[in-house]
Amino acid sequence: MAAEIEINRNLIEISPIFKKEYLPSISVDCIVFGFHDGNLKILLVRLIHSKTWSLPGGYIKKDEDLEKGASRILKERTGAENIFLNQFKTFGKVNRSEQYFKDYPDDMWHKQRFLSVAYYALTNYSLVQPEIDGFSDACEWKDINDLPDLMMDHQEMLNEALLQLRRDLNYKPIGLNLLPEKFTMPELQKLYEVILDKELNRGNFFRKMKRYNILTKLNETRKGGAHKAPDLYSFNIDTYNSALENGFQEGW
Amino acid sequence: MAAEIEINRNLIEISPIFKKEYLPSISVDCIVFGFHDGNLKILLVRLIHSKTWSLPGGYIKKDEDLEKGASRILKERTGAENIFLNQFKTFGKVNRSEQYFKDYPDDMWHKQRFLSVAYYALTNYSLVQPEIDGFSDACEWKDINDLPDLMMDHQEMLNEALLQLRRDLNYKPIGLNLLPEKFTMPELQKLYEVILDKELNRGNFFRKMKRYNILTKLNETRKGGAHKAPDLYSFNIDTYNSALENGFQEGW
Repeated sequence: MAAEIEINRNLIEISPIFKKEYLPSISVDCIVFGFHDGNLKILLVRLIHSKTWSLPGGYIKKDEDLEKGASRILKERTGAENIFLNQFKTFGKVNRSEQYFKDYPDDMWHKQRFLSVAYYALTNYSLVQPEIDGFSDACEWKDINDLPDLMMDHQEMLNEALLQLRRDLNYKPIGLNLLPEKFTMPELQKLYEVILDKELNRGNFFRKMKRYNILTKLNETRKGGAHKAPDLYSFNIDTYNSALENGFQEGW
Repeated sequence: MAAEIEINRNLIEISPIFKKEYLPSISVDCIVFGFHDGNLKILLVRLIHSKTWSLPGGYIKKDEDLEKGASRILKERTGAENIFLNQFKTFGKVNRSEQYFKDYPDDMWHKQRFLSVAYYALTNYSLVQPEIDGFSDACEWKDINDLPDLMMDHQEMLNEALLQLRRDLNYKPIGLNLLPEKFTMPELQKLYEVILDKELNRGNFFRKMKRYNILTKLNETRKGGAHKAPDLYSFNIDTYNSALENGFQEGW
């Protein structure tokens, strides 16, 4: 209890430094999905001062581009580097953040109203080694189907990020850096099924993937199973990157 | 010249009121596309103080939800009401706004760094009667192919809004409130062609629209032309609204 009071006094004492360094009214939150072994995870931190789980987030420096700030915040908070962040929505309801600190002094930095610019990313879980910083006592991958309670509107942010990720599957390729260099069609299908949280028809999936023209069929099969050895594929980096930039030519 | 100095002094004098009423660091800009008679237009205002053309924009009140603020700003600036605004991106590069007022006093409201939350809408041009407010001397629909120079990064915002609108065509229906209640397939196709800025294949368009299941074929034809009278359609409001909410079931 004494330690808790100490931590909260620190948040008050640090406020003048925050005011000098960061833009008021604006925060950033990052929803980082990790894929590993057929499971979808999310990167969370537990804040020391409140012991609540939170998305990794922070503030934009006065002389820093928004996009650069988002990457810096994610790195400082979790150790995760070189992750491509997709901005998808700014959350701005009254009382989304300020009520959270309502019992604290008015000049405390964290107590002001923040609009939060939210980013999502999908990354290879095993490439990120979560690290805590001075504001958290835990930084962990949590299974998407077994999440702790999240602070403020962070569960809503997470839900909307997942909807956006699913929507993006309709016009952008995914899988590079998430799957091994050589993979089978069922392994790729599993990735889509985990994100969409539903089973897909095998024949339809195969035809759709072929139409997208982002795969190279290798002259190799995966050996060692009990069944017929399945074909191996790799991504065609050129057509994959072109589709990432221009979208699948499925549309109008 | 004297009038110009007067106007800029007004922006300085009004600053304490703005500081009291609005959240710092945050602005909103609205990209309103209008469709009329086979043309795509955009709603712009010309600012009195600088005589530059600008997207309709403004600031969020301290006790106001972001989404409500965006609608209020659009109404105050242009007179346009009941327009569904889609938030699509927050623009946050250093110097995107603050360099614009660099010769003014530091305590001037407009001179601070703003991140701008951008919204777009597509509406029926003839339902909006543009009105000026106290900060502008013109509010007009401009043809998308014949635009004046825009202030700050507003041209970039407009370009990105158009990309987002085109992307949205892949999973959301459009046309309701833009076309008359009864319309022909070529009229609907023309709407898509104007937004996409390219010609579409008539047969493919017809098949795709049928698959979307949002049209009702009427037992009427459009009479009076030199050619065979074309079939008339209307939107099936139930399936249209369902597709608007859930997206076309074309995806995964």
